[in-house]
Amino acid sequence: MQKFGGTSVGTPERIEAVAEQLTETVRAGHKVVVVVSAMAGETNRLLGLAHQIDSRPSTRELDMLAASGEQASIALLAIALIKRGYPAVSLLADQVGILTDNKFSRARILSVATERLWQELEQGHIVIVAGFQGRDIEGNITTLGRGGSDTTAVALAAALKADECQIFTDVDGIYSIDPRICSGAFRLPLVDSDSMLELASLGAKVLHSRSIEYAATHQVPLRVLSSFKPDQGSLICYQGAGMSLPKLTGIACQKDEVWLQLTGISSALQTQLFKEFARQSVETDLFTLLGPQQIGFSLNRSDLSVVEDLCRELAAKQSFDWLVFTGLAKLSIVGVGVKANPAVMAVVLEQLQALAADPVTMQCSEIKLSVLLLERHLASLANELHRLLLIEEI
Amino acid sequence: MQKFGGTSVGTPERIEAVAEQLTETVRAGHKVVVVVSAMAGETNRLLGLAHQIDSRPSTRELDMLAASGEQASIALLAIALIKRGYPAVSLLADQVGILTDNKFSRARILSVATERLWQELEQGHIVIVAGFQGRDIEGNITTLGRGGSDTTAVALAAALKADECQIFTDVDGIYSIDPRICSGAFRLPLVDSDSMLELASLGAKVLHSRSIEYAATHQVPLRVLSSFKPDQGSLICYQGAGMSLPKLTGIACQKDEVWLQLTGISSALQTQLFKEFARQSVETDLFTLLGPQQIGFSLNRSDLSVVEDLCRELAAKQSFDWLVFTGLAKLSIVGVGVKANPAVMAVVLEQLQALAADPVTMQCSEIKLSVLLLERHLASLANELHRLLLIEEI
Repeated sequence: MQKFGGTSVGTPERIEAVAEQLTETVRAGHKVVVVVSAMAGETNRLLGLAHQIDSRPSTRELDMLAASGEQASIALLAIALIKRGYPAVSLLADQVGILTDNKFSRARILSVATERLWQELEQGHIVIVAGFQGRDIEGNITTLGRGGSDTTAVALAAALKADECQIFTDVDGIYSIDPRICSGAFRLPLVDSDSMLELASLGAKVLHSRSIEYAATHQVPLRVLSSFKPDQGSLICYQGAGMSLPKLTGIACQKDEVWLQLTGISSALQTQLFKEFARQSVETDLFTLLGPQQIGFSLNRSDLSVVEDLCRELAAKQSFDWLVFTGLAKLSIVGVGVKANPAVMAVVLEQLQALAADPVTMQCSEIKLSVLLLERHLASLANELHRLLLIEEI
Repeated sequence: MQKFGGTSVGTPERIEAVAEQLTETVRAGHKVVVVVSAMAGETNRLLGLAHQIDSRPSTRELDMLAASGEQASIALLAIALIKRGYPAVSLLADQVGILTDNKFSRARILSVATERLWQELEQGHIVIVAGFQGRDIEGNITTLGRGGSDTTAVALAAALKADECQIFTDVDGIYSIDPRICSGAFRLPLVDSDSMLELASLGAKVLHSRSIEYAATHQVPLRVLSSFKPDQGSLICYQGAGMSLPKLTGIACQKDEVWLQLTGISSALQTQLFKEFARQSVETDLFTLLGPQQIGFSLNRSDLSVVEDLCRELAAKQSFDWLVFTGLAKLSIVGVGVKANPAVMAVVLEQLQALAADPVTMQCSEIKLSVLLLERHLASLANELHRLLLIEEI
């Protein structure tokens, strides 16, 4: 099972390069199922057309529209393979049998039929499946939301019990820290799935949380590789797989964070607020109970206007106050050994003090230690912690 | 039943204009099913990508690719209608149930299911169907070839027994002659379907023959209108509909014609040649038996290289000679009264003589009189004949 993202199939030339690479896999004796995203920029172009017509378009129709992007790219890749003499067949979600729920634009896969896939594979075909999309029980086209093509690949790999699900992207693996922030960043050959899940949800954009969750649930060996240079990439593995893992995996950095502090808000209103967050897919982090009827949480700045609208709405029913702190960043140390090792916390506190960086909040869970602080302190702290915790491993 | 072509939905602004027009039809109390083509230029863009990869791409995959164009446009039109408060739903061929044979890129519709269409209409939805495409019995996407969206509209109109199938295009109807050739051209309010079929096959590009054939077989009232200015357009009607029709319908002019003369070709080879033409969709006209083992026929210059290749191939088996005459044009007078009225032939012969235009060949069938002549004589002859036969009606 291989999956190629939008930049990997962004032009006819890139599609030919992917086809070339696939023929090598086939010559090596593998049966191949490939999941492909829309050509880079295509989904945005299509959604742009929709938004020119309506700023809040029907989600059923948006999914119908967006799904056409993958339909084009799978056909083009099939054409490139057939030209090379390799029998290939492109399949849409309904032709494979990828059933989802009916939550347009963020559907979840319910089941994957394997009959047609096996039938094509047994005929010696390279099977190319449109990523990102499914059909609900009524036959409507649905899409799986951000990172949806990865989820498609993982779901197919699970259904077919594939040896490995290889996600080809424009980076060559998972790094210990964002190389743009810290030049000492190194690639992780192995990452445990729990840490990977934390890294993904903390903004390491290589894989979307949902595909990692799906892979973990079905124990699909997941490998992230570059489609531009051949290498081993990073393999995501599971507890009990007998792998020896380092105690700390990496550091995730997330800019553009804001912190909200709500005062005098009843628990009934708190409940309502978070129900609305769930409905509107607003993701919050670092939730903290600050006192009686006083809570704080972080979120990405892009969600701030939605959240403030909600606060205004609720406060109109039953008054409460809120404060917004902007210009923040979140740094998170991730790994199975985080909580077990108080030295990690000690190092973080020491470095914060050295930088005179007063954190807005800190939180430590089983495998993650997060600090919310002013964005201007992020780079220095990240570099120091990466050196101390991941390179020198004190 | 309404159908909008590619230029009618070429931009988000045009799509909004179509939506606006549809809301008027709905407010007038009609239930509406709309068939939409891909946005102008989109199909060519997609096919261009395919041809960058392979000059002779797999037709199954080409159909998969091309069909994505209509998928985008139906979703965009639905979004524009929903924005205006009109419940609309876009449907693909498999969602409607449009079954075709499996001849990729030139499939024929075998059946249209109406259950889903009626169900949506009864719920008060405007139903938007992707034109040009179907599914074969195995669930592969097929396309209907040139003019395919018109065929979709006619097939749906027939299945639903619609009052009228309205084809909105960038012209406002069927004309007595190409207005670019003759300034006296006038719009025909009524055209009988036989004449329309001849006009279409003779190169009046407004409707494709296949859609007219389909309409005639199922007696679907077909109207051609402009999507840019409101008017009555041209209605295609059927014999026995009690309409009073003029004896001559119009004059069709086709440039870029060539004439082939084959000498010393056995009837066995003639048969082989025309079987190959059928297989490769080469259209010939004005076939004439010129003598023993000697035939002549006309065709469009764009097919010449294919035909010459075939001749070379066959002549290698059993030698024969051929001559090619280029720089020709075909003028055809069409109408139910053509053969019944020898005066038409007399006028044509007289005008040819006046122009000293020696025709390569002439042929007269029940409702059509065709002349093949040098292209430089076309405009003068067309103008004179239009004046004499269609305006003065001598």
